[in-house]
Amino acid sequence: MLQPIVAKRVRLVGLDVDGVMTDAGVYIGMSDGGIIELKRFDIQDTVGIHLLQVARIKVVIVSGRFSEATNIRARELGIDEVVQDPKARKLPAFQEMLDRLGVRMEEAAFVGDDLPDLPVLTRVGLPVAVQNARPEVREVAAYVTGKPGGNGAVRDFVEALLHARGEWEDVVRRYLAERGDPTPRLSGAH
Amino acid sequence: MLQPIVAKRVRLVGLDVDGVMTDAGVYIGMSDGGIIELKRFDIQDTVGIHLLQVARIKVVIVSGRFSEATNIRARELGIDEVVQDPKARKLPAFQEMLDRLGVRMEEAAFVGDDLPDLPVLTRVGLPVAVQNARPEVREVAAYVTGKPGGNGAVRDFVEALLHARGEWEDVVRRYLAERGDPTPRLSGAH
Amino acid sequence: MLQPIVAKRVRLVGLDVDGVMTDAGVYIGMSDGGIIELKRFDIQDTVGIHLLQVARIKVVIVSGRFSEATNIRARELGIDEVVQDPKARKLPAFQEMLDRLGVRMEEAAFVGDDLPDLPVLTRVGLPVAVQNARPEVREVAAYVTGKPGGNGAVRDFVEALLHARGEWEDVVRRYLAERGDPTPRLSGAH
Amino acid sequence: MLQPIVAKRVRLVGLDVDGVMTDAGVYIGMSDGGIIELKRFDIQDTVGIHLLQVARIKVVIVSGRFSEATNIRARELGIDEVVQDPKARKLPAFQEMLDRLGVRMEEAAFVGDDLPDLPVLTRVGLPVAVQNARPEVREVAAYVTGKPGGNGAVRDFVEALLHARGEWEDVVRRYLAERGDPTPRLSGAH
Repeated sequence: MLQPIVAKRVRLVGLDVDGVMTDAGVYIGMSDGGIIELKRFDIQDTVGIHLLQVARIKVVIVSGRFSEATNIRARELGIDEVVQDPKARKLPAFQEMLDRLGVRMEEAAFVGDDLPDLPVLTRVGLPVAVQNARPEVREVAAYVTGKPGGNGAVRDFVEALLHARGEWEDVVRRYLAERGDPTPRLSGAH
Repeated sequence: MLQPIVAKRVRLVGLDVDGVMTDAGVYIGMSDGGIIELKRFDIQDTVGIHLLQVARIKVVIVSGRFSEATNIRARELGIDEVVQDPKARKLPAFQEMLDRLGVRMEEAAFVGDDLPDLPVLTRVGLPVAVQNARPEVREVAAYVTGKPGGNGAVRDFVEALLHARGEWEDVVRRYLAERGDPTPRLSGAH
Repeated sequence: MLQPIVAKRVRLVGLDVDGVMTDAGVYIGMSDGGIIELKRFDIQDTVGIHLLQVARIKVVIVSGRFSEATNIRARELGIDEVVQDPKARKLPAFQEMLDRLGVRMEEAAFVGDDLPDLPVLTRVGLPVAVQNARPEVREVAAYVTGKPGGNGAVRDFVEALLHARGEWEDVVRRYLAERGDPTPRLSGAH
Repeated sequence: MLQPIVAKRVRLVGLDVDGVMTDAGVYIGMSDGGIIELKRFDIQDTVGIHLLQVARIKVVIVSGRFSEATNIRARELGIDEVVQDPKARKLPAFQEMLDRLGVRMEEAAFVGDDLPDLPVLTRVGLPVAVQNARPEVREVAAYVTGKPGGNGAVRDFVEALLHARGEWEDVVRRYLAERGDPTPRLSGAH
């Protein structure tokens, strides 16, 4: 589904937050006078992002809404850069980030779900829509994940990307070796 | 499904909170002696409400239960007015709000899910039920959303409304232009 | 499905908490050194419990686990009595409560989902299992709800109970009249 | 599905946390400057773990990520040992734990969902995958649960294990007797 020639060009993966790394829910409320806001992230995505890092592909976050939850999650994941624009002006923010990192638009993938992602998605080399993306986003995507945001969408894309690059088995082997299994036994994974 | 003549008359959209802007769940508990209450809102609805604002349609909230979470969410969304009546007496509260804003019942839409919404729904020009609404609510609705509350119900209604008014493409184009994309590329959305 | 003769005898409804008033999830974590525990309750159940109260049926909670969240929720709902036994010894706790309230086992309904509910369920006049109940619980139930716990199970049972008692339309009418609608318009609900 | 000869050998059950005892979601955010992290555990699993304890099978947790939520949950469940390795090096941690408890690899079951569980799963006597496990994990499993993590996966495995050992009815009877029902009435459970 993902063309090897496009997949191999990717040096950086940009991720939207709400609806991509989460299921689009935000948990809002109060405790003792202080505002609480939580987001629900997915642990299977965590492994996916670590696999990208093993494959030496940069991972960045571009959100159209400010949330401390995003910064906390990014630190835990070892994400390279985070931009949160409260006005959802993602295109200039993403372009500036690419310039700084020395990556061209054609070398970037971006995973999005909604209208604010369109300006970026229509310009990157590999535009990706999550399963729960709005129809306008699915239409411009070169790849649509089989899982919805917050429930494996990022992991699904990472696997598709590494398979298309022919790197999946090697990356998994290195990932497991780093986790204390000198002789990982893998029966021919898909 | 939504009649253009009814849709074009709408100047104000009233939203119930629990079960409409959320999935009807309330997260309740304690931390260090303080009570916590959270609600789960939907980010795709956020874009929907911003689209209504671009189209210059007023958005108000009428809840039958007091919750600080609702106020926090309303501020973030730039909602015009919020009424929370702990006795769930929504009809007098909504009528008073309309009078203040100079909007007539026939010019109002209301999105609800349960019995407390019936007094308002049976009087507005455009009564809307979410997919997960109780049968009594669905029966009086002129439009039933294809998505449940907290999972895109509000967004679904907003799109149906703007399509029926013939304003969808123009509103999206203005929304994207405000977000830093001077030349949005939209392939003929639904 | 629910026999009128059994339904009419009910003077008290006992509710388990986890898996019945919630979806069996408990949200556990930390904040600044303090433990947080949240449960997710359902707002459509709130209306259901208010309808029982309009019908003058007592509502009590019997939980096999202590949680402050349950007390907070019970207060908000105006629940008559709450027993939380950390050892999940529900039968003696429930029996003692009935004695105190002057209600006989045959006049009680109980809604449960799991093994700890069996001692009570095998003795009340109207044993009810939620859709997601363990098979052992479903087997002893006289009624199984069409919705799972935390997603309308209690509301579903309340409606079935009031319909079987022939009180549904009258109770809804009184509920709406109390909410500021002197002339509720109800098109023949199911 | 589960072979009695394998099931009877089990003296210890190891559980991964995220995706097994939870649905893989982590709820992350801020309150008043303090970081909040919650996990959603399942109450029907609680009863399952208590049933293992009645059957005198040890229960341990091996997580590849540090979280205070896991410690809180483990204490509530009376779990024997908890190891949380932030580098997800589960095999050496699990082996060391088994040595300390005097249990051999062949006498251990382990329930996992993702790549970091593979080093342990390919070595224990009874490797178990949850329904939502990655394909690589399902392939090495001797048993795949019928329910996903955080929604009954652990409970499902416990029931299958106790049935395969021929201990189910006896364990349930003892569990109920401890909860104040001297004469439990059980109609022939599945």
